[in-house]
Amino acid sequence: MQELQINAVSTELNKAIQQKIDLKTKPLGALGMLEKIAFKVCQIQQTTTPQLSKPAILVCAGDHGITQEKVSPFPQEVTFQMVMNFLGGGAAINVFCRQNNIQLLVADTGVNFDFEANEQLLDLKVRKGTRNFAVEPAMTREECQTAMTNGAKVIEQLHLEGTNIVGFGEMGIGNTTAATALLCKYTGISANEASGAGTGLDAEGILHKASVIDKALQLHAEISHPLDILATFGGYEIATICGAILKAAELNMVILSDGFIATSALIAAHAINPNVTDYCLFAHESNEQGHKLMLKHLKAEPILHLGLRLGEGTGSAVAYPLVQSAVCFMNEMSSFEDAGVSNKE
Amino acid sequence: MQELQINAVSTELNKAIQQKIDLKTKPLGALGMLEKIAFKVCQIQQTTTPQLSKPAILVCAGDHGITQEKVSPFPQEVTFQMVMNFLGGGAAINVFCRQNNIQLLVADTGVNFDFEANEQLLDLKVRKGTRNFAVEPAMTREECQTAMTNGAKVIEQLHLEGTNIVGFGEMGIGNTTAATALLCKYTGISANEASGAGTGLDAEGILHKASVIDKALQLHAEISHPLDILATFGGYEIATICGAILKAAELNMVILSDGFIATSALIAAHAINPNVTDYCLFAHESNEQGHKLMLKHLKAEPILHLGLRLGEGTGSAVAYPLVQSAVCFMNEMSSFEDAGVSNKE
Repeated sequence: MQELQINAVSTELNKAIQQKIDLKTKPLGALGMLEKIAFKVCQIQQTTTPQLSKPAILVCAGDHGITQEKVSPFPQEVTFQMVMNFLGGGAAINVFCRQNNIQLLVADTGVNFDFEANEQLLDLKVRKGTRNFAVEPAMTREECQTAMTNGAKVIEQLHLEGTNIVGFGEMGIGNTTAATALLCKYTGISANEASGAGTGLDAEGILHKASVIDKALQLHAEISHPLDILATFGGYEIATICGAILKAAELNMVILSDGFIATSALIAAHAINPNVTDYCLFAHESNEQGHKLMLKHLKAEPILHLGLRLGEGTGSAVAYPLVQSAVCFMNEMSSFEDAGVSNKE
Repeated sequence: MQELQINAVSTELNKAIQQKIDLKTKPLGALGMLEKIAFKVCQIQQTTTPQLSKPAILVCAGDHGITQEKVSPFPQEVTFQMVMNFLGGGAAINVFCRQNNIQLLVADTGVNFDFEANEQLLDLKVRKGTRNFAVEPAMTREECQTAMTNGAKVIEQLHLEGTNIVGFGEMGIGNTTAATALLCKYTGISANEASGAGTGLDAEGILHKASVIDKALQLHAEISHPLDILATFGGYEIATICGAILKAAELNMVILSDGFIATSALIAAHAINPNVTDYCLFAHESNEQGHKLMLKHLKAEPILHLGLRLGEGTGSAVAYPLVQSAVCFMNEMSSFEDAGVSNKE
């Protein structure tokens, strides 16, 4: 992947943005989180009249060799079956994107299945599933970078088409195990603390998953470069999203960070370039054990607390109307002066 | 107000509703709060194919004699000025209703101002502001019942026009003091515990407000009938919303409960008929001190935690798209069988 130029967002307009928020006809701070969202979108766009244009969610699917270690209660074939469900319009992410007028892009980044050509499916397949990282690195560094470049190219195209806000979703049986390993390796949190139920493991299953991750962390203990960590423990969908996030930040787009897997891609991106979180809103805090730890690591304040743990980008899709609300009040709400309303005595 | 027939919601379809939710293509429970919302809307409508029709928010404005005790940092004239702002389309609630295609109704239930006739403003004025409840009851029981009947009539009309989901907002300088007194009297919580910053009191101001409420609770210690409590400490906007809530429950509408003041009206309604909460979704937990206590009293689980404390019905307006998301997934998402996706092994 080519060199990136991700600048920290400018603080030049901070005072003007805050002043505009504070003079709206409401008690100071009374719109809570919506004010923080408005502030951040203004800061990213360097304006006091923010606009959201052609929102899009990119859902990346990929399979994981780590499923050989029996870390998921669902069979691997569910990955391709769910891709077919996305293409058929019947998955949760389809429903929520339709509801909120969000463009949905579905990409095969590494599914262990031969799809027939379908213009609704972006073919970004690097390989038919990763290797089992309990035994060897999941991806070569080259494969990982190919996936990252693929993600960046999708974002470049969306940007050309006028999209300025983007969310990321994923599908991949076994990928909470990959995401947990990434969380542990990038932050030093233990596998026991970070491991959760995923799609529905019981207590014994979670212990087994933590033990698989723990052993893999020991096996690959010498790895330390951010890209090598991503290649060793990640997945094609995670690497694709990571590359997409980095490119979106470079292009000053608003990034809607989502659940456990998508946020693992952000943690990788953040390890590569910490300025990337300047461009992020955090759609929700999921019900997956490790997601809280990820948000804490990124000093993130999530918009929603709905106990979601579905993935697919569903958190971003349902949080989007609140980002719209923030932008709408910034542009459309009267100031005390405009409305002839007396301010605090 | 005439006798009400508010039935507890039937549990007859509970199993069928839950089964439909559980067979959607997602891990069990993975849509978290959205599943609970879907369940409740289905239960209220007694169907597994719920529909939301012509959502509306009724904003009631009224003035409060208790402002004579200097309990708000804003002057009373802000109440009528904000009504003018609502009519001009520049307030937060206007912005969010426009964004989410929610019909907005604005009612003068007791503002201390003579408005010119305006077809955008419902004239439900009972009196130009309540009396000072630090000295005497805020309303007579008759005035209170008139306000309740007015609210019920608005709901009957909306119901005739096809609305089946309704939220409530308010505007009234001084009304967090009224709402706090209602919370204390209906639940036994102390004024010190329940009193918060309202539109922006400092610590000293909050102590003063708590002391005003405490003395008033002592003055009216003998009052015990739910209607007399509402008349003594409430306001015309709170009584109007209370009557509207009761009628909406009687008509099997979905009620979106909102912030501190609107929820005080629900607490009054709940004291009159506890079945009313069977019809309620709780839009958000506000940043006003006593709102958490109200939600606990009503055993309510709020949808949003955005730190809002604006009133006007803004919490309901911004939560509405999430209620839509819940209804959409219930109707549009595929089941495992329909989509040919393997379920958990």
